Amino acid sequence: MNKDVKIFLNESDMPTKWYNLIADLPSPLDPPIMPDGRPVTPEMLSKIFPMNLIEQEVSPKRWIDIPQEIMEILCRWRPTPLRRARYLERYLNTPARIYYKDESVSPPGSHKPNTAVAQAWYNKKFGIKKLTTETGAGQWGAALAFACNLLGLECKIYMVRISFEQKPFRKVMMRLWNANCVASPSIETKIGRDILQKTPDTPGSLGIAISEAIEEALSDETGKTRYSLGSVLNHVLLHQTIIGLEAKKQLKIAGEKLPSIIIGCAGGGSNFAGLAFPFIYDKINGKKIDIIAVEPTACPTMTRGVYAYDFGDVACQTPLLAMYTLGHAFIPAPIHAGGLRYHGMAPLVCKAIIEGLVTARAYDQIKSYNAGVLWAKTEGFVPAPETNHAIACVIEEAEKAREEGKEKVILFNYSGHGLLDLLGYERFISGELKEYSLPQEELDRSLESIKGFPKPKAKTV
Amino acid sequence: MNKDVKIFLNESDMPTKWYNLIADLPSPLDPPIMPDGRPVTPEMLSKIFPMNLIEQEVSPKRWIDIPQEIMEILCRWRPTPLRRARYLERYLNTPARIYYKDESVSPPGSHKPNTAVAQAWYNKKFGIKKLTTETGAGQWGAALAFACNLLGLECKIYMVRISFEQKPFRKVMMRLWNANCVASPSIETKIGRDILQKTPDTPGSLGIAISEAIEEALSDETGKTRYSLGSVLNHVLLHQTIIGLEAKKQLKIAGEKLPSIIIGCAGGGSNFAGLAFPFIYDKINGKKIDIIAVEPTACPTMTRGVYAYDFGDVACQTPLLAMYTLGHAFIPAPIHAGGLRYHGMAPLVCKAIIEGLVTARAYDQIKSYNAGVLWAKTEGFVPAPETNHAIACVIEEAEKAREEGKEKVILFNYSGHGLLDLLGYERFISGELKEYSLPQEELDRSLESIKGFPKPKAKTV
Repeated sequence: MNKDVKIFLNESDMPTKWYNLIADLPSPLDPPIMPDGRPVTPEMLSKIFPMNLIEQEVSPKRWIDIPQEIMEILCRWRPTPLRRARYLERYLNTPARIYYKDESVSPPGSHKPNTAVAQAWYNKKFGIKKLTTETGAGQWGAALAFACNLLGLECKIYMVRISFEQKPFRKVMMRLWNANCVASPSIETKIGRDILQKTPDTPGSLGIAISEAIEEALSDETGKTRYSLGSVLNHVLLHQTIIGLEAKKQLKIAGEKLPSIIIGCAGGGSNFAGLAFPFIYDKINGKKIDIIAVEPTACPTMTRGVYAYDFGDVACQTPLLAMYTLGHAFIPAPIHAGGLRYHGMAPLVCKAIIEGLVTARAYDQIKSYNAGVLWAKTEGFVPAPETNHAIACVIEEAEKAREEGKEKVILFNYSGHGLLDLLGYERFISGELKEYSLPQEELDRSLESIKGFPKPKAKTV
Repeated sequence: MNKDVKIFLNESDMPTKWYNLIADLPSPLDPPIMPDGRPVTPEMLSKIFPMNLIEQEVSPKRWIDIPQEIMEILCRWRPTPLRRARYLERYLNTPARIYYKDESVSPPGSHKPNTAVAQAWYNKKFGIKKLTTETGAGQWGAALAFACNLLGLECKIYMVRISFEQKPFRKVMMRLWNANCVASPSIETKIGRDILQKTPDTPGSLGIAISEAIEEALSDETGKTRYSLGSVLNHVLLHQTIIGLEAKKQLKIAGEKLPSIIIGCAGGGSNFAGLAFPFIYDKINGKKIDIIAVEPTACPTMTRGVYAYDFGDVACQTPLLAMYTLGHAFIPAPIHAGGLRYHGMAPLVCKAIIEGLVTARAYDQIKSYNAGVLWAKTEGFVPAPETNHAIACVIEEAEKAREEGKEKVILFNYSGHGLLDLLGYERFISGELKEYSLPQEELDRSLESIKGFPKPKAKTV
């Protein structure tokens, strides 16, 4: 019998604290600043986020308690299973043992509700009645709709137009959970109307959608609306660390020590950070672990972007964040991995790269879909197109282990299922999709948008 | 903390035998016969099914060992969780404790692979190279594609046209798992061509698709092709009993005795039987349990059909089965619960109804979708439209328990998720769907098709 294909953790063994990497960084983060170089104060953010989450954003504490009510909601699907990919291992004939944390089992089908539930809860506690947000593939929008429905908050979602059209069914899910979802750019905001006038056929971008969601939050005169971000920020990554903390306990149950290699796909960085950060703690404390963040060649933020101060959105409404960026004017090609199309990257993930704790790789969509199809044929489950990028890297590392004849333990984050992304698979199977890397001249043009911005202190290698 | 929202069973505690209700029936089943009344011999079926499954079909043994290799494949997702619907309970303010067996966690998203894997395995063992089948909603087709891919068999699927068009994404899944899926009626068989000539706009039916799949299996002159059925037959129901056997162990872990009420939706009867049959054993042995099979008012086989000998297909290629039937000429209305649109019902389920062990109810699609939407809003997960029929009954029973002030334990089969059925939800939300019951004159016309057939011995109440 194939024992330990699934390693479960009891509800009572779920971690009760989140892990905050900031406490253990070798040097301080470059802080968010205003375009004129002034530091951002909590008060400046207080119209966008509730103060309890702003406090969490800047907290230096290593461990932060998960409120009991949040734990109860997470228990609907958490702890998520740790699974062993024995069938892929067998197919690849690799000595590597491949484990994956299955975040696809949540009701919205991805890791996103880990933070959506937490954010909705803190907002509600602060007296907020409505949340606005953007969504790319629809994973985040569905997650926030799910969380707001459970907690009785109103929810308005700006969905990147190309995904709104390619992924019609996630809209239905959001609607089932009582949210109002519109295509972005929309006519409901000033920034949306301006962009539609200039470029009526734009596929949209996460940057534009963020701008619209923030505009709506700021324009509520009752002060009861806030904005919610599904990735990038410190507190969002914090909420995701429950993934890695559970995985640590489960690897122990499986009889493994620390993994040799940890892999996650990274759009804004939250699913990657959620799995990896609790293990970066071990790496800082002397353990040898390769930690790899994977992005698409169509949106190569970490592998070809620059480390610089840049806006988080297109309309330049956010503070400047120190991060790897392709420039806030970047409009990504319409690849199907909608969740990996952001121009920036979580500052904490960038900092971990600069400190040599994390390395980044980029894979093309064809290589990624091939990996996803192989996964579906061997393991049986259909992964999200975003997740396929991580799987492509897993396969590469498992083949390397075979060539080297080395026993390794590979752990990756299975960030979501692909059941609402089958159109992308259909286009791939029928040969419609092509290899694609961001052309250099497009990157150069987009980077023009951050010329003259203040420079961060941390130096990249 | 909400303990026991999910009750898991270890892989090592998975049942090792299937339960065969035939061994415990108070009186013998009416056997399948030929149209002229002669008994069907195993040899007559041997061109359609492999002999090892035919033996299982007629076995009188109470317990049948599950082969080790089948157990290993089932372990990819089994044992499935037993979940407690605490949030629906709270919403309904009911004293009833509602448990559900979550069969949606399998890679194809339903209970169907429980038998698909077993059938593919027995066929392979018998030397068969290719399986043909029909599918309604696509749940069964996806499951057989999944199983055949894992076991290295070719797979050809005739999908009822209306579902082929309404559920485009299940086709992609079947293709990912290497199967060939065509819309039925198709031009690939004689029966398909004949029907298309007479009624080119037909939405198709399970009966027609079965006919096409059997025709293809019979016409392979090498003798290496067989047909596979996803419900109705004794051995199919047998393979599903692992659901109820696991649920029994899990209810014990949850500290419950036997359930007061067991509910499942029933199209061909297999998910219902899989959960219910192991508990019918207890009912036969004196325990008081209400066991309810739920069907749509659009296809009211058990509640308005007649108990009679009828063909399993439209082209009259199968033996006659003793069952509740609407007549094999029945063409169901295009409701979205594609898996509940069969003109007949598993003979074993029918026999259990006749013996007073099971009662049947019919719900309209509007009531069912309302139940599914309430489920998504309270429990968070999106159920399959078929499953919604069971949920409608669960809600009715939980409300009754509240009115009576009685603590009850309700157990039902969450037969599949609705992530590939969101189009149906969209049509429901936007008011496109209407209440629908099969008109009496249509039923009368359809029942004409079995006039003059031999009569079964068992008498209905």
